[in-house]
Amino acid sequence: MNILSQNTAFGGMQGVFSHASDVTGTEMTFAVFVPPQAIAEKRPVLWYLSGLTCTHANVMEKGEYRRMAAELGLIVVCPDTSPRGNDVPDELTNWKMGKGAGMYLNATEAPWAENFQMYSYITEELPALIAEQFRADMNRQGIFGHSMGGHGAMTIALKNPDRFQSCSAFAPIVNPLTADWTQDAFEKYLGADRAKWREYDACALVEDGARFPEFLIDQGKADSFLETGLAPWKFEEAVKGTDISLTLRMHERYDHSYYFISTFMDDHLKWHAARLESL
Amino acid sequence: MNILSQNTAFGGMQGVFSHASDVTGTEMTFAVFVPPQAIAEKRPVLWYLSGLTCTHANVMEKGEYRRMAAELGLIVVCPDTSPRGNDVPDELTNWKMGKGAGMYLNATEAPWAENFQMYSYITEELPALIAEQFRADMNRQGIFGHSMGGHGAMTIALKNPDRFQSCSAFAPIVNPLTADWTQDAFEKYLGADRAKWREYDACALVEDGARFPEFLIDQGKADSFLETGLAPWKFEEAVKGTDISLTLRMHERYDHSYYFISTFMDDHLKWHAARLESL
Repeated sequence: MNILSQNTAFGGMQGVFSHASDVTGTEMTFAVFVPPQAIAEKRPVLWYLSGLTCTHANVMEKGEYRRMAAELGLIVVCPDTSPRGNDVPDELTNWKMGKGAGMYLNATEAPWAENFQMYSYITEELPALIAEQFRADMNRQGIFGHSMGGHGAMTIALKNPDRFQSCSAFAPIVNPLTADWTQDAFEKYLGADRAKWREYDACALVEDGARFPEFLIDQGKADSFLETGLAPWKFEEAVKGTDISLTLRMHERYDHSYYFISTFMDDHLKWHAARLESL
Repeated sequence: MNILSQNTAFGGMQGVFSHASDVTGTEMTFAVFVPPQAIAEKRPVLWYLSGLTCTHANVMEKGEYRRMAAELGLIVVCPDTSPRGNDVPDELTNWKMGKGAGMYLNATEAPWAENFQMYSYITEELPALIAEQFRADMNRQGIFGHSMGGHGAMTIALKNPDRFQSCSAFAPIVNPLTADWTQDAFEKYLGADRAKWREYDACALVEDGARFPEFLIDQGKADSFLETGLAPWKFEEAVKGTDISLTLRMHERYDHSYYFISTFMDDHLKWHAARLESL
């Protein structure tokens, strides 16, 4: 693991690291905030998955999570959204595909399958590295994210309910099967057979029987992607009649930006801390 | 005044605006956070001046001031650090001079004098625009800043003690007469006669009789510019025997970055709010 930067913040440490990933075949960069409590003892791990076009840096710079994470004693891990590098396939004029658009799935189609294995990277390889390198209590993990990263957080939680004790999302893509900005990428990554897309779709996973106890979703009503790309009411519909508890909060005037995310960041950190017994 | 962007955040509004400045002869950009209270009533104004290489955007994205400013009801104005544009003189390979390095002074030397009038811009032209366009209580103003912007805040407060009720700084350049990163720029902006530099130097202003009731300064001890560019103990020395009160806090492990600034942002906002009676 290479240390790219380390800065003291809120009594803890905000670091940026990279490592050679076997899963993606590339050098992967990620950010970790280590709260002051984790110098002395193992602390819970909270995963933040970012949205389309982002790297690890967007939430690190604009998410405003460090003050409350330091208070609550949460380690916050912020991975990149895709493999990077000159040898990684991409569509240069399409921000919804390739670099910055890993969709938190394992691609099966050429030329994407060789590097775009973000599901395995996030759920297997990176957690092993975090467990090895930080004072992380891997028995207490939460996961959240924004937009494409909200999709990632919710699908990963639904597929790994024993691994995670908490899940939340800011403006998540709850139904990539129908969202306008994911269908092209899903077809290229997974092929034309939509049955195979269902394991990476929060609504479809619930319909197919996957369960996670409860979700918190915050959504801005002034979000320009609300109707065509997000539509959280589809997830509300999907969980009806199940034992899944959903807290869906719709906020007047808020958009899709980090101004929205940072406003509700404290609420999400507290949501996770309560469920991770990190108070 | 042109609206470049407006985003809802913490119940208020973070805006970015531009206007044609008579003082600099250029289009100037600035950011304003309007707290929710300022929709209904006039609120105090807090000026944040940024450091070398920055625009209005650095603190807006990384300063983490909105949550507490919304709570305290402070309007936060973040100007640019220099005039910009293709016609503005610059030294392209020197980040301590020209664009991004206005030094909050009025240049007297060619070719700089025509545009680099940041002192007048910050103290006269922009306040008039803020008073006109926002619900700003101009009888309650505070000023703070970082590094070069800490220099700006402190010198502007010392020269305008009737205008401002509060002043603080993160890692300020307290003595540009001796700091290694300001002498070249001061000579080019103001000429070789160092007597003329003294009105833009916090230590020299105090020595020459300028007064402001009290200052809060936070400084990281792991700041790589501490010895050669900042040296806050020089200001501590300058105020000895005066009626100026200085709270100088030295912090182990903190550097010169926004990770340092954001950590202590809440303390500074509360410092100003208490003196602006904005609680």
